[in-house]
Amino acid sequence: MCERPGYRERVQRLQGEMKEQDIAYVFLSISPDLFYLTGYTSFVSERLHLLVVPVTGDPTLILPAFEMDTVTHLSDWITVVGWPETEGPIPKIQASLDHEGTESSIRIAISDHTWSVFLLQLQTALPKADFIPSSRILAPMRRVKDRYELRVLGEAQQLAVEALTRLLERPFAGRTEKQVADDLVGLCKRVGFDEVAGVLVGSGPNGAMPHLAPTERVIQPGEPVVIDFGGIHEGYYSDCTRTVHVGPASSRFTEVYDVVRRANEEALAAIRPGVPCHEVDRVARDVISEAGYGEYFTHRLGHGIGIQVHEEPYMVEGNELRLSSGMVFTDEPGIYIPGAFGCRLEDVVAVTDDGGVRLTNLTRSLTVVH
Amino acid sequence: MCERPGYRERVQRLQGEMKEQDIAYVFLSISPDLFYLTGYTSFVSERLHLLVVPVTGDPTLILPAFEMDTVTHLSDWITVVGWPETEGPIPKIQASLDHEGTESSIRIAISDHTWSVFLLQLQTALPKADFIPSSRILAPMRRVKDRYELRVLGEAQQLAVEALTRLLERPFAGRTEKQVADDLVGLCKRVGFDEVAGVLVGSGPNGAMPHLAPTERVIQPGEPVVIDFGGIHEGYYSDCTRTVHVGPASSRFTEVYDVVRRANEEALAAIRPGVPCHEVDRVARDVISEAGYGEYFTHRLGHGIGIQVHEEPYMVEGNELRLSSGMVFTDEPGIYIPGAFGCRLEDVVAVTDDGGVRLTNLTRSLTVVH
Repeated sequence: MCERPGYRERVQRLQGEMKEQDIAYVFLSISPDLFYLTGYTSFVSERLHLLVVPVTGDPTLILPAFEMDTVTHLSDWITVVGWPETEGPIPKIQASLDHEGTESSIRIAISDHTWSVFLLQLQTALPKADFIPSSRILAPMRRVKDRYELRVLGEAQQLAVEALTRLLERPFAGRTEKQVADDLVGLCKRVGFDEVAGVLVGSGPNGAMPHLAPTERVIQPGEPVVIDFGGIHEGYYSDCTRTVHVGPASSRFTEVYDVVRRANEEALAAIRPGVPCHEVDRVARDVISEAGYGEYFTHRLGHGIGIQVHEEPYMVEGNELRLSSGMVFTDEPGIYIPGAFGCRLEDVVAVTDDGGVRLTNLTRSLTVVH
Repeated sequence: MCERPGYRERVQRLQGEMKEQDIAYVFLSISPDLFYLTGYTSFVSERLHLLVVPVTGDPTLILPAFEMDTVTHLSDWITVVGWPETEGPIPKIQASLDHEGTESSIRIAISDHTWSVFLLQLQTALPKADFIPSSRILAPMRRVKDRYELRVLGEAQQLAVEALTRLLERPFAGRTEKQVADDLVGLCKRVGFDEVAGVLVGSGPNGAMPHLAPTERVIQPGEPVVIDFGGIHEGYYSDCTRTVHVGPASSRFTEVYDVVRRANEEALAAIRPGVPCHEVDRVARDVISEAGYGEYFTHRLGHGIGIQVHEEPYMVEGNELRLSSGMVFTDEPGIYIPGAFGCRLEDVVAVTDDGGVRLTNLTRSLTVVH
């Protein structure tokens, strides 16, 4: 149970891909990509931290000189270079490149999440470089999880199940959405999440807005409530949605719930290596459309999850990428009836050689709360 | 007390500047700049939200179609356009531009914090556009605070004073840095901060690393502890540092503390409209250098503060920008003796016609804790 990420092996695989794609350097600022390759993270600010990975040889981490002592647990094959407050990072970045690299036309992959202001500076400093997003080379690596990642992702979903199970034992009617959300934040910390990443609680008509933040609306008896939340465990995300009902549900809501549940289950059944992502979305969408609710399923079926709460692979129309064993993503169909209510069920699932396996082990039967 | 930001007036001022600088469009994703201009914010994700501000006419906010109902409190002169999940945002962005804009060579300012992956997509979609960072046009506006902002920033610093005052009444010796930090997070929420932005607690030798995150180190009697924390109030940041001592201080620490305090006070006294930023840094640095600790003051004196915890103007060597009335920034000299201890004092100060005024009303005398 104590395997750790193999950072060196990840960097070597990346360099192999760089060679194939003719990429001279990968530049990673504080980002999920940097965490994936090195385990290093810090807060993002106007002071650039940049890992320079050359196609051959060891990487260099360039960061503010006065923060150098703060860097711990970094692999010893990564050189650390500090830039002084009065100089900025660009000269040290240029110095870390081969003479050739700064003169001739080269391709550089830059982390997707690097701020534009830094990219514009780098484009000015390296006018011959052709910048491409790092996801072009790193997403194919990151979207297939290794054993370590599958374990941590499984643990994260289990923590989510524990937190939500406790929440559902508590009263809903008479509390505001914000109060329930705060309660869930506290429970997430209590069960052991390192951080809580976001909590949505949408009651009655508010549930019809999939990304509405919790409001001061008081939850009423007889209403459905959509609860969607994520936490971070060892750098990896959980993501889980359940729609519960305060007291007995109407036949209309029960019908919608059953359609959403069937869409979730049929999508899971469609998962196996080789199936294109859009096919998984289509299976769920067909269930909902055939029941007459197609226009109310307004978002994609799901998103990959790992070091980001949303990452590749995306289960969305038009994505022909084929599933492979080790991919992990959400299965989250929803029906949103404006002005009335919303209903969404979200599990995290993993692709195995034998098909889809849920990492979210929580009932999908309609839960009645008080 | 109920004045609100004048968003329309801010957009009009921006458009005046755009005309002067020959900027055809300003593109703002979820960012401090977007909040400043419109009050709009949301979580940053792979689904782009983009405000397109043309040099003349009203702005358009382009965001995921299924999130459109979530947008509230947006001024009615901003058009809202949704992009469908299966299409991505680029076609709608292109459609929001004049025909001329997409054909000829134009300058577009893009928010500094927009992810590189979006900028690279936009550069591909608009190959004739010359992108520049939005800070070039928005930082000069944002670094001078208006009356509304000065009030909110004052309130934020006052909340920080209340939280820290309560923390200093509690025991330090025997608790870990993390425990003290968690305690301060709780106090920040209790005094009324909307969010806690970051808490550093560095005891003994850990205090010598200015940006070290709180550790499991147990705080000992006879040690100094550097406490640096920020919270968010109505979208505006606080930032405050005090170095306290657990029990009586040694003469060596007391000497260092007095030097840091003098540097803080002499910097404040040097503030008045027209003085260059680097001069304020230099005044503090001279105090510390003359006392023989120059090599241990490893960072700039301070940073502007507002919708970002770090923003213009920066009090750093080489910054010739002149202070003007309404600028708000930190005055935070420090001395860091590796392996021994650190000492930093940080206030937020505002420039007025009569000189510098502290927004952080908290004693600068050495506080002894237990």
